[in-house]
Amino acid sequence: MIKFEYKFKVEFYDVDSMDVVWHGNYVKFLEASRCAFLSDLGYDYKAMKQDGFAFPIIKMDLKYIAPAFFGDELRCEVYLEDYSTTLKISYKIFKGTNLICKATTTQACVEIKGLKTMFELPVNFHKALKERYDV
Amino acid sequence: MIKFEYKFKVEFYDVDSMDVVWHGNYVKFLEASRCAFLSDLGYDYKAMKQDGFAFPIIKMDLKYIAPAFFGDELRCEVYLEDYSTTLKISYKIFKGTNLICKATTTQACVEIKGLKTMFELPVNFHKALKERYDV
Amino acid sequence: MIKFEYKFKVEFYDVDSMDVVWHGNYVKFLEASRCAFLSDLGYDYKAMKQDGFAFPIIKMDLKYIAPAFFGDELRCEVYLEDYSTTLKISYKIFKGTNLICKATTTQACVEIKGLKTMFELPVNFHKALKERYDV
Amino acid sequence: MIKFEYKFKVEFYDVDSMDVVWHGNYVKFLEASRCAFLSDLGYDYKAMKQDGFAFPIIKMDLKYIAPAFFGDELRCEVYLEDYSTTLKISYKIFKGTNLICKATTTQACVEIKGLKTMFELPVNFHKALKERYDV
Repeated sequence: MIKFEYKFKVEFYDVDSMDVVWHGNYVKFLEASRCAFLSDLGYDYKAMKQDGFAFPIIKMDLKYIAPAFFGDELRCEVYLEDYSTTLKISYKIFKGTNLICKATTTQACVEIKGLKTMFELPVNFHKALKERYDV
Repeated sequence: MIKFEYKFKVEFYDVDSMDVVWHGNYVKFLEASRCAFLSDLGYDYKAMKQDGFAFPIIKMDLKYIAPAFFGDELRCEVYLEDYSTTLKISYKIFKGTNLICKATTTQACVEIKGLKTMFELPVNFHKALKERYDV
Repeated sequence: MIKFEYKFKVEFYDVDSMDVVWHGNYVKFLEASRCAFLSDLGYDYKAMKQDGFAFPIIKMDLKYIAPAFFGDELRCEVYLEDYSTTLKISYKIFKGTNLICKATTTQACVEIKGLKTMFELPVNFHKALKERYDV
Repeated sequence: MIKFEYKFKVEFYDVDSMDVVWHGNYVKFLEASRCAFLSDLGYDYKAMKQDGFAFPIIKMDLKYIAPAFFGDELRCEVYLEDYSTTLKISYKIFKGTNLICKATTTQACVEIKGLKTMFELPVNFHKALKERYDV
């Protein structure tokens, strides 16, 4: 399966009054990881927009296993799960070798002009995937 | 089933560059709704903390059905799904009569001193529930 | 001077690991207060946009006097300081009768088409002001 | 003057419906830059807390010169302006060679136990400064 890694650091503003990362901030970590993956792929949100498409999140689930703290250096493994009709990505966030969060996001491909949902991903997404990962 | 309603407004800072509420900000809407429910119940995060307990989110899923826009007045229906071993709450967010988002959160009850996970909710939670909803 | 009041509540996600509202979140409080003022005036961001204008913040300063805590009910006094060339608004945030934060924002008026900075506010802003406050 | 540099990237969640970084998110950029400076100095928020001190922001001002966009790689220059009674830091954020934002923050030093404001910075701050910058 296609896999990508992204590293990031927990900032002071990420942490809540229990001294751990506020659960909602993992959604930002997922987005930063996903955007880094798409950027590395050569087909990021900007390229999508230029092609006339947007990729709204239609489904998201997260499982929190262990807390993260201010200053922690974390690593997110990004897996391309499915791209037949929607863009489904799964994530594993690690602190060292400990898995601390698992998540999945599903994005629909929407034609910006007319707001029509497409049932296949843009040709340029497939092209980028072929060039980068030889699938 | 125990049900509670919470109304709120979409602010400018909630909206992303596609002119719709950024998907991660629904996590804040859920938290505000949940806290309003617990506050109305008479057993909020502050009471929990005074009793020595915290309720970290251990699982969360969201389904996005339709977008929300800057200035929208939204309504969140909060349902107490389960409180036998964890606190499971489901949410339905409406714009007018249109359901635009469905979500579920699950929270563990953790004794702050010692960080031990409890397998039942605090006595005072049950007491508050009985007084407010006669369950 | 033209004055407006806005009330709001501190949410759990507003608070940092020192158990007080994170200083950056006051920027959101200011924006919510300002938007409520403009909405009450009848010339909000949406009306501005329809008229072809945006009002980017070009300057902002905040002075923090006392902390605010989760669950606090706060009140923001909004003062229209100047609207001769830019939109300058000052704010006083109170917890009960205690002033806890003072702030000022300055917004330029930019014509969206062409991104040209205007040196006077839109006719419809002045019209709305006259109708609502008889200035 | 003591100077430090910090590089960061604009994420999708940083951008508002005008397609530019929302003005309030610069507060996060300042905090990340400041924390990187203090971390490099060897006296970060965690060390402060261990010594029994917190450094709440008591004053902040920002001047926005040019917008930043999703995907932009930015650079923040951090300057230690004053540390005689409070910790005053100034910031210049650049996109390439263009200065896009200037800011200043002032932090008081507060003894956590008793919440007493100190009128001088902790001995260990001065020690770290001497070791790292030979002042």
